[in-house]
Amino acid sequence: MDESNSIGIVTAQRAQFDTPLTFRSGAVLPRYELVYETYGKLNADKSNAILICHALSGHHHVAGTYADQPKNVGWWDNMIGPGKPIDTDRFFVVGLNNLGGCHGSTGPSSIDPQTGKPYGSSFPVVTVEDWVESQARLADLLGIKQFAAVIGGSLGGMQAMQWSIAFPERVRHVLAIATAPRLTTENIAFNDVARNAILTDPDFHGGDFYQHGVVPTRGLRLARMLGHITYLSDDAMAGKFGRGLRSGEYKYGYDVEFEVESYLRYQGDKFAAYFDANTYLLMTKALDYFDPAREAGDELARAFAPIKADFLVVSFSSDWRFSPQRSREIVKALLHNRRNVSYAEITSTHGHDSFLMQHQQYFDVMRAYLDNVAREFSV
Amino acid sequence: MDESNSIGIVTAQRAQFDTPLTFRSGAVLPRYELVYETYGKLNADKSNAILICHALSGHHHVAGTYADQPKNVGWWDNMIGPGKPIDTDRFFVVGLNNLGGCHGSTGPSSIDPQTGKPYGSSFPVVTVEDWVESQARLADLLGIKQFAAVIGGSLGGMQAMQWSIAFPERVRHVLAIATAPRLTTENIAFNDVARNAILTDPDFHGGDFYQHGVVPTRGLRLARMLGHITYLSDDAMAGKFGRGLRSGEYKYGYDVEFEVESYLRYQGDKFAAYFDANTYLLMTKALDYFDPAREAGDELARAFAPIKADFLVVSFSSDWRFSPQRSREIVKALLHNRRNVSYAEITSTHGHDSFLMQHQQYFDVMRAYLDNVAREFSV
Repeated sequence: MDESNSIGIVTAQRAQFDTPLTFRSGAVLPRYELVYETYGKLNADKSNAILICHALSGHHHVAGTYADQPKNVGWWDNMIGPGKPIDTDRFFVVGLNNLGGCHGSTGPSSIDPQTGKPYGSSFPVVTVEDWVESQARLADLLGIKQFAAVIGGSLGGMQAMQWSIAFPERVRHVLAIATAPRLTTENIAFNDVARNAILTDPDFHGGDFYQHGVVPTRGLRLARMLGHITYLSDDAMAGKFGRGLRSGEYKYGYDVEFEVESYLRYQGDKFAAYFDANTYLLMTKALDYFDPAREAGDELARAFAPIKADFLVVSFSSDWRFSPQRSREIVKALLHNRRNVSYAEITSTHGHDSFLMQHQQYFDVMRAYLDNVAREFSV
Repeated sequence: MDESNSIGIVTAQRAQFDTPLTFRSGAVLPRYELVYETYGKLNADKSNAILICHALSGHHHVAGTYADQPKNVGWWDNMIGPGKPIDTDRFFVVGLNNLGGCHGSTGPSSIDPQTGKPYGSSFPVVTVEDWVESQARLADLLGIKQFAAVIGGSLGGMQAMQWSIAFPERVRHVLAIATAPRLTTENIAFNDVARNAILTDPDFHGGDFYQHGVVPTRGLRLARMLGHITYLSDDAMAGKFGRGLRSGEYKYGYDVEFEVESYLRYQGDKFAAYFDANTYLLMTKALDYFDPAREAGDELARAFAPIKADFLVVSFSSDWRFSPQRSREIVKALLHNRRNVSYAEITSTHGHDSFLMQHQQYFDVMRAYLDNVAREFSV
């Protein structure tokens, strides 16, 4: 982190919602909490708010650090702060942990007040539509009638799109980054392998492992290792690790030999030590289910008909999980509806992970677009 | 199978080798057996023999059926038989189960005569070089001094290449299909996830599960599901399954919902029911290790210097696991050594699996090349 323009110390907040939320699945959650952070100042007419939607493993801690954890830097700190593309001197930025998450918002590892035990397998399967509904309630609580922009990458981009479909009057701009109008068959297949790693881990106990004092570490670790491969590009992995050997020679065994194995296993171990297995399942299911065209005769242009927001769509050349082709489908369907769309296809070797990395052209595009958004209101 | 030109009923044979084999790892196997099949007739001067090397999950049953198992058709029956591209009216075709396999040749699930128990974790890690050494001994046994051709796809293609490096005088032609001079970083990464699924399965018992009366089914199933995705192309999966739902609607749970999930889980279950987990580990390690350039200053052209064989190299446009780019590296290094090389890049949507499928252009290329090979000898 470049501390010279960090937002600095931030504080997480907690909002309680006592109006029952009915999920797409029909399940009802009587009450829930969302943990969130805000950066910058909401202006007098509350027109400068930006919502940041997170992806699979993200959360509400988007920028800055905590007073008691100076090294705990927000996951998009390079993008958000004073003078940064998402400029906290001009915008009031809201980040939250999604419902079903494992970073403080109500989720499978939270205690169900009705039973006194963790929700576990009883926590409803949540969709992008459900998240957007819960996010709208958070906006209500903050007095935000309309966001200047809703921004997200990957699964976060799906939420940003859904905002413009479900609440056309409540979002002026959508920044949809490294995302897709729905997953490909291959995407779903990878997710299913990751889910099966967790579901078949003997320590999963049908989702109620909390009561057994165990965690399905093996499954989570495999899921993360696999996911990690698909977030990178073939070239990026080759450039970073090549066929480098940890000890310089073949060992003819099953311990770590290649550098890439060491990296993947480390990433898997790290993730499995803190992430909730049920949350992982929910997040991948939300990815699989998102498909606005599905209820519009498989025509994305029809699904996009309600949209009033302007769009910035960004894709990355080496992203094979959410390829530029998928972003172009979004652009096409928006243009069909005569929406204002800016589209940037960034040349980058870092695969899907590019959307989280500092890249001059990408950041310039984001900054330029948001400069224009900021001109629409007075701070 | 088109029975009109099937080789018909075939019989597996067994060869015992009592000369100790020293592996690349330094391990020694005092004795071992190889199970193999032959089709067609070896001509008088033994100049019409073709060796088929198998890939990860292949074996010796390459063509035809068994008298007592009429539906057990060889894995490359579409390619091999009377009048087929690998024409058994002209060639004497040899297929074997590689050492370390689980289809009859000595492998981890075989009984170690020294202990009376399965080898399990004590079976040596085997390399492509070790396999070629053991295959050469089988050739000796069959009286074959020189193969007209050694043919293989994927991991089989690596063995075919290794034949021409290790035994330049013993192979006149190499047909290297959908293969690579070494795995990419991403390939190794996928293999490591698959291996970790097996290694961390509680039923694996460090490779000695046989004595525990269990099988690491969960791990094998995950490994196969993951592998299967990488053998197909994104487009092939989309064309075959799309986002089709098994019951026509979202179920909001973790049972099979998408058709592709059903297919993958079925493939995983089927594979896990018969394949040996230790063999899977060995096969993927052999893939990872193969890298002839490694001992030649990372210069493939130098590693290929001993080669005397002519080559047919075939790749498939949608194969992202062993992409055409990798085949071109092979071609380039052969041309550097002034070898005769034919190269065909087949346009196919079926990904890495293309090499096992009936495809007119691919079969025409194979047939034309082998027609020329057959002209070099008299049946």
